[in-house]
Amino acid sequence: MQAWLRSLSFPVPSSVSDAVSLARFELERALPAYSFRLSVQPELGEGWSFSRRDGEACLAGGPAGLLYGAYHLIQLSLSGQALPEEAASAPRYALRMINCWDNMDGTVERGYAGRSLFFEGGAFQYDPDRIRSLGRLLASVGLNVLCINNVNVHFPAQLLLEDLLPDLAALADLLRPFCVRLMISVDFSQPLRHGLPSADPLDPAVRAWWAEAANRVYAAIPDLAGFLVKADSENRPGPHAYGRSHAEGANMLAEALRPHGGVLVWRAFVYNCHQDWRDTATDRPRAPWELYMPMDGQFADNVILQVKHGPFDFQVREPLSPLLLSLRHTPMAMELQLAQEYTGHQIDIYAMPPMWQELFRDLPADRICAITAVSNLGRDENLTGHPFAALNLFAFGRLAWDPAVDPAEVTRQWARLTYAFPEAQERQLVSLLMGSRRVYEKYTAPLGLGWMVNPHVHYGPNPSGYEFDQWGTYHKANHTAVGIDRTRNGTGYLSQYPESFQRRYGDPSVCPDLDLLFFHRLPYSFVMKDGRTLLQRIYDDHFEGYEEAAAMQETLKALPFPEPDAGVIQERMQRQLANAREWRDVINTFFFRLSGIPDQHGRVIYD
Amino acid sequence: MQAWLRSLSFPVPSSVSDAVSLARFELERALPAYSFRLSVQPELGEGWSFSRRDGEACLAGGPAGLLYGAYHLIQLSLSGQALPEEAASAPRYALRMINCWDNMDGTVERGYAGRSLFFEGGAFQYDPDRIRSLGRLLASVGLNVLCINNVNVHFPAQLLLEDLLPDLAALADLLRPFCVRLMISVDFSQPLRHGLPSADPLDPAVRAWWAEAANRVYAAIPDLAGFLVKADSENRPGPHAYGRSHAEGANMLAEALRPHGGVLVWRAFVYNCHQDWRDTATDRPRAPWELYMPMDGQFADNVILQVKHGPFDFQVREPLSPLLLSLRHTPMAMELQLAQEYTGHQIDIYAMPPMWQELFRDLPADRICAITAVSNLGRDENLTGHPFAALNLFAFGRLAWDPAVDPAEVTRQWARLTYAFPEAQERQLVSLLMGSRRVYEKYTAPLGLGWMVNPHVHYGPNPSGYEFDQWGTYHKANHTAVGIDRTRNGTGYLSQYPESFQRRYGDPSVCPDLDLLFFHRLPYSFVMKDGRTLLQRIYDDHFEGYEEAAAMQETLKALPFPEPDAGVIQERMQRQLANAREWRDVINTFFFRLSGIPDQHGRVIYD
Repeated sequence: MQAWLRSLSFPVPSSVSDAVSLARFELERALPAYSFRLSVQPELGEGWSFSRRDGEACLAGGPAGLLYGAYHLIQLSLSGQALPEEAASAPRYALRMINCWDNMDGTVERGYAGRSLFFEGGAFQYDPDRIRSLGRLLASVGLNVLCINNVNVHFPAQLLLEDLLPDLAALADLLRPFCVRLMISVDFSQPLRHGLPSADPLDPAVRAWWAEAANRVYAAIPDLAGFLVKADSENRPGPHAYGRSHAEGANMLAEALRPHGGVLVWRAFVYNCHQDWRDTATDRPRAPWELYMPMDGQFADNVILQVKHGPFDFQVREPLSPLLLSLRHTPMAMELQLAQEYTGHQIDIYAMPPMWQELFRDLPADRICAITAVSNLGRDENLTGHPFAALNLFAFGRLAWDPAVDPAEVTRQWARLTYAFPEAQERQLVSLLMGSRRVYEKYTAPLGLGWMVNPHVHYGPNPSGYEFDQWGTYHKANHTAVGIDRTRNGTGYLSQYPESFQRRYGDPSVCPDLDLLFFHRLPYSFVMKDGRTLLQRIYDDHFEGYEEAAAMQETLKALPFPEPDAGVIQERMQRQLANAREWRDVINTFFFRLSGIPDQHGRVIYD
Repeated sequence: MQAWLRSLSFPVPSSVSDAVSLARFELERALPAYSFRLSVQPELGEGWSFSRRDGEACLAGGPAGLLYGAYHLIQLSLSGQALPEEAASAPRYALRMINCWDNMDGTVERGYAGRSLFFEGGAFQYDPDRIRSLGRLLASVGLNVLCINNVNVHFPAQLLLEDLLPDLAALADLLRPFCVRLMISVDFSQPLRHGLPSADPLDPAVRAWWAEAANRVYAAIPDLAGFLVKADSENRPGPHAYGRSHAEGANMLAEALRPHGGVLVWRAFVYNCHQDWRDTATDRPRAPWELYMPMDGQFADNVILQVKHGPFDFQVREPLSPLLLSLRHTPMAMELQLAQEYTGHQIDIYAMPPMWQELFRDLPADRICAITAVSNLGRDENLTGHPFAALNLFAFGRLAWDPAVDPAEVTRQWARLTYAFPEAQERQLVSLLMGSRRVYEKYTAPLGLGWMVNPHVHYGPNPSGYEFDQWGTYHKANHTAVGIDRTRNGTGYLSQYPESFQRRYGDPSVCPDLDLLFFHRLPYSFVMKDGRTLLQRIYDDHFEGYEEAAAMQETLKALPFPEPDAGVIQERMQRQLANAREWRDVINTFFFRLSGIPDQHGRVIYD
């Protein structure tokens, strides 16, 4: 038993082999005081309805809906609430996916919770009980697709379509009762492994190869969700090698999947990753919009374009990707990242629900048809490295089901299920978590600037670590100013947005403080809305961020976490505080050396 | 046949098993026109004398002396010169060593010429013919000791004293005819592997363990040169863990070696590698002097303290280590680095003889008793990655024999032996090589500053790559000034030097330009001796460095190198030019952003 279901004290036995049986099993064991009638109503699909009268509880839904309804009721009960008289729910998005970046050698790209849950030494290796426990966690928050291998498909992951297919099918069988369908990341160049002279998507032999591959996979796993592809991105192979468009590449694979009802998820994370830092005409955030807008309407209807929430890459603060606001005729998934790649490595506390709420403030829920998140899972005993990182998985499921959920309420639910603290302490914990992103943001790169991080590792400060590199992520700080002008006077990135966003961000006197340096190049003497200078605001944030991290440590010391969580939380908080101190001093020193301007309040900035 | 002996067209057969036979074999095959009489005179040791009259040539020496004399005569002949009537020579230093940083997994730390010549997959693996060829090269320039394993002793290199001893002895047998004795790097904590509770050098059980280990090794290899130790340095184990001094640690090992005539070489590369960048009281270059000066006279007479030539770590320009000038009662070796760790990775051309001449300008030859250099060798076909890197090995041998050699003459000898160009082209090549260090210096970190290099990799520019790190290597550049004041007004490092050095370096108006930023913190507006400002000098050097690298490319294109050298030289020169451009622009931009001061000549500096 793990994470927020730790108080569910019985395992799911291997004999339970379908969703309806599982729903019945869970309800009977978890809620023995009630007598449940389960009514299978396939037309309800993943939705469910519940009513209770005269001691009889009736849950109706498609098979998956029954399971989701059962877990909803069980979690209500586990958190000490009475079952309602009436309730009903259905998910907002049909595809609610976790993307694992697991390699078959057992490593996890950007994994901070230990080695892969699925692979070791080039083969499948897992504990079936642990996989069932994972399935239960995913189903308990309504997540329904799991892509198990890294989008960077390193050998031998190609063999998932070949020799390893029986093993893949065995894993699919294990997760099927939990209504978790598998997806796999595929290598666009895979036909080359099989003697074909090209992987050109318009080559009939290539099309035939993929059709045959899909037939083979679906014969073994009839409910496979589909394929996920990272193509022409960060040196991965793709259709550009053959002079073909991404629509041509994606549609070819979609055609192979269509007879089986599969979807083809195509990542839009494409940019020039060999940029010359001297080149000021190229501005990386412009790249996805420039590539995909001309293709709007060209994708087959079983293609989903998977777009990262921001135009860069999961920084602490980025505006919503303009591509998500602009495509009209292309089904899209928004991609989030639970793995704390740039947000503290599951050492620093970083609760994401407040951040996601901001995204959905800007993104009409119907602009996307699916939602996915990069996994934060691994073989660590607690699954997520930091026990609090499980909140992000929990909340992502809730959000994928209903993007209008209240972040504080979701956080409270998770805290209650996980720790069952008395109310005052629960409030302290929820408050700490809700503020944790802002604390992290304060002590790291300022005001939307991003990227002042140790290259490659992405933990700890390095103000100029990417400044002369090829990744298109520059701040160009000098002795008087910092940032990139992305308005029409600068790189023009802002013009990719609808008018209302242009008004919000275009004028530095109007632009929200926390987005200022994403959109503007400003002198250190720029006066913020509250009268402080830009530089003083940077200093203040960094001093405050450290102080607030120190206060978090005090709060956590006083809360009655059980072991082993208590030990892990204290140990990581100590490392977070050291990290916050290092960030504070390095960033402040960096700007002080550049500007020569001291802190107005005389606090220590090292020279 | 390789490197400068490529025109010696016959291999040394495995049947030649001692130095005298080898000398005879080489002379008979290489100089068949002469009739040689070899006179073994053991009292001459490694020295030799030669006389020629009436067609009879007589070479006298100890066995090693005969071999060195033979190679001297052969190389004279190979470079087209007549044998003299009379000649004699003897080496300045008894210990002339190459330190290989080879790991037993086949990697080479800071190796830029392919994998290890000796090891692969945790075991010995080599071609005996290649080892004989290596022995011949080393002997041909008088090098007499080869330490084959990394000073960072990674498992299973500990087994060289144990299970792998027979394999080590077999390698020693192969090299013995070439008068190349082996040395091995040992792990100070090795007794812990054998059940001892400590490695405390004053513990009788530890002393007994090492005595027994030495007995075992010398039973297998009676002429082993000794042990080399890196202790309490960059996280290696050492006597400090037991509250013992380095003299106590070194003397304990020396005692174990003494009955066998072995020496214990102890590296003085010890500093705080976990420095807090905020800590301005610590100045890394002070560390070796501070540690070892109080121990002067405490080391046993078969200990040699191996001191890097500069107080940091093989930067392009460092002043001579004050420790080399200060110890009076401690035998010392000076350590050079042929591996181009910070000097271009054997991609960029960097001929070292001019640099070494500067060291011996400052270092009285009798201050040291031995000389060693980190190897630039590997499994690449040409042994050194860049064919020109072989010059550094050749010249190091010559210098170790006679530190007063003329760098240009040595370079000319190498060029003639290697390429046998017509005189005008030879002059071009020698001139290019003699200037290559200055070119590299111009486009990299300016005026003795050092360390503006990509961390860990140590190739390519990164002006602040080490600025907030733990390695004690900071420049603290801000909007007005750059550098660390190491005079008595600053960290006091300069006071470790004799008075004459303090006069040379202490006053920035007197200090040589190229050392300025090693010793001083100066404003960009500081006026150099030639009237330029410090900043303009930095800009000028960087523009010139790139232009000079471009001119080197043109020179090389016109020279008639044979294949495969020609292809390798052109390919690497292309990469050097790209590197020079990157350095030029990154360093100029870095200082321009800080200072806001443009180039006086209006050349392009990116903002």
